[in-house]
Amino acid sequence: MIPTSDDIRAAMARVAPHVICTPVLRVTLPELGYPVQVKLENIQTTGSFKVRGAFNTLLSGPVPAAGVVAASGGNHGAAVGHAAHALGHAAQIFVPELAGPAKIALIPSTGAALSVVPGTYAEALAAAQAHEAATGAMQIHAYDAPLTVAGQGTLAMEWDAQGLDADTVLIAVGGGGLIAGAMACWQGARKVVAVEPELAPTLHHALRDGPDSVVQVGGIAANALGAVRIGRICHDLARAQGVQAVLVSDAAIAQAQRLLWDRLRQWVEPAGATALAALISGAYVPAEGERVAVLVCGANPAPGPFA
Amino acid sequence: MIPTSDDIRAAMARVAPHVICTPVLRVTLPELGYPVQVKLENIQTTGSFKVRGAFNTLLSGPVPAAGVVAASGGNHGAAVGHAAHALGHAAQIFVPELAGPAKIALIPSTGAALSVVPGTYAEALAAAQAHEAATGAMQIHAYDAPLTVAGQGTLAMEWDAQGLDADTVLIAVGGGGLIAGAMACWQGARKVVAVEPELAPTLHHALRDGPDSVVQVGGIAANALGAVRIGRICHDLARAQGVQAVLVSDAAIAQAQRLLWDRLRQWVEPAGATALAALISGAYVPAEGERVAVLVCGANPAPGPFA
Repeated sequence: MIPTSDDIRAAMARVAPHVICTPVLRVTLPELGYPVQVKLENIQTTGSFKVRGAFNTLLSGPVPAAGVVAASGGNHGAAVGHAAHALGHAAQIFVPELAGPAKIALIPSTGAALSVVPGTYAEALAAAQAHEAATGAMQIHAYDAPLTVAGQGTLAMEWDAQGLDADTVLIAVGGGGLIAGAMACWQGARKVVAVEPELAPTLHHALRDGPDSVVQVGGIAANALGAVRIGRICHDLARAQGVQAVLVSDAAIAQAQRLLWDRLRQWVEPAGATALAALISGAYVPAEGERVAVLVCGANPAPGPFA
Repeated sequence: MIPTSDDIRAAMARVAPHVICTPVLRVTLPELGYPVQVKLENIQTTGSFKVRGAFNTLLSGPVPAAGVVAASGGNHGAAVGHAAHALGHAAQIFVPELAGPAKIALIPSTGAALSVVPGTYAEALAAAQAHEAATGAMQIHAYDAPLTVAGQGTLAMEWDAQGLDADTVLIAVGGGGLIAGAMACWQGARKVVAVEPELAPTLHHALRDGPDSVVQVGGIAANALGAVRIGRICHDLARAQGVQAVLVSDAAIAQAQRLLWDRLRQWVEPAGATALAALISGAYVPAEGERVAVLVCGANPAPGPFA
């Protein structure tokens, strides 16, 4: 179930022609006073890393005539819609009302069919599963599927090829697909730090209470990081590698969002700023000489500039 | 008066510790259908390339106790204010009302003193010259000074070092400091295409009517590209190299702004999108196999996301 390096290499060959090799920066923000490497995955097509897993899944085997189906807080749905359209498949996306109008509007812009489901991500997932059962469409899980995780792992492999020389990489966690891909890629060669909102501490609780912990989620990043249960692949990798899950307040996330604009003119959603918030707030303090990198994983603020 | 390669190399040594090495992308936008190399100088400190010339000037000789003075449509003033503050000098910036509240607000945030002058850039420049005469402060011209141009030329030299392999580079022109730096750096080894708004066709007219042509300026990019007379350094280089100045409509600029958000999640001011507008609109059409690059030179939209 856990992708190997070979799985991620194979994913890279599938995905690379369809995604942007997103840029990396080396900056010393005055607010931190030490150098940080930053990867701007917010520049990715559809505004988040999610296209990597979507393309990897769609290109790994035959897609039924009924097309694909996905449940999503917004970013995954836009990514699946985009990848399906690019490859000539139909897509049906279920989003919870929680996703909000800005993210919901992204989905039909990709050519996908959209259903907005009352309630939370869990209700949208149930609707997607019912659609899968009724139509035979192929389900693309947002985070807890090996092909999704291997696809997200291409981000870590790409960053290595761009000359990443960090001891430690901070990554925001919702359901855990992205960080699972990074853990599967690096296999302990780099220290991975999971960063979660205090109001969506899903991995944090699972590492304390076990993989089936269910958490109440809320806060400003809920539509992107608000999985109520951590993905099993993520959980197992995090436990095996002894990964730390640090928590940040909504205020710290908002401060990091503001800082990404003030210092780097990147306007990102709260989830995209969550990893940086751990440094700004001191939730993670690097040791003397520790080389630190931060992943900015998504854009898609609400409302956007052209709303 | 025209900077040499050695001048730009010397500028690079002065400037590099103080600026961001801004990222480059290789993308095929669906709206174009061919690959384009893009440099995201909008990510630069203070949101534009202007800090390069400001640091180069301040680090090239003694700065008087009275500090520095500059006139600016906004971006240059923020850059001079930032560089002066970073190096421990006082700065007095004169901006025309035309700069607008978003850009005007950037200037005091750098620590500089601000005077808003009724009228246009020409009136702000006159006020800055009067301040220079009265106080002995050092004037940092926004575009028509050798140290400013050599500083902006570091952008072209940096891009070369990042592996730029374009035949042709499109650059927006206001007073012409940035494009002059690029022309001085490349010396005809790459084709440089100047892009101007139809409503601020300053270089276009100067190449037709002579270097002293004065142009009425307006339109959505006026606070960044609205110089009424082209810089002499820019004019002389453009004439010597046979550079073409193409014109784009405000509608094309707005479309390019929108596209930079939709495709790359970069929110930039009209000036920052002007070079891309030449490709989108067909004002410049690359030949078969011509490798094209576009410079996104500034961010600082008005109002910004946290206004």
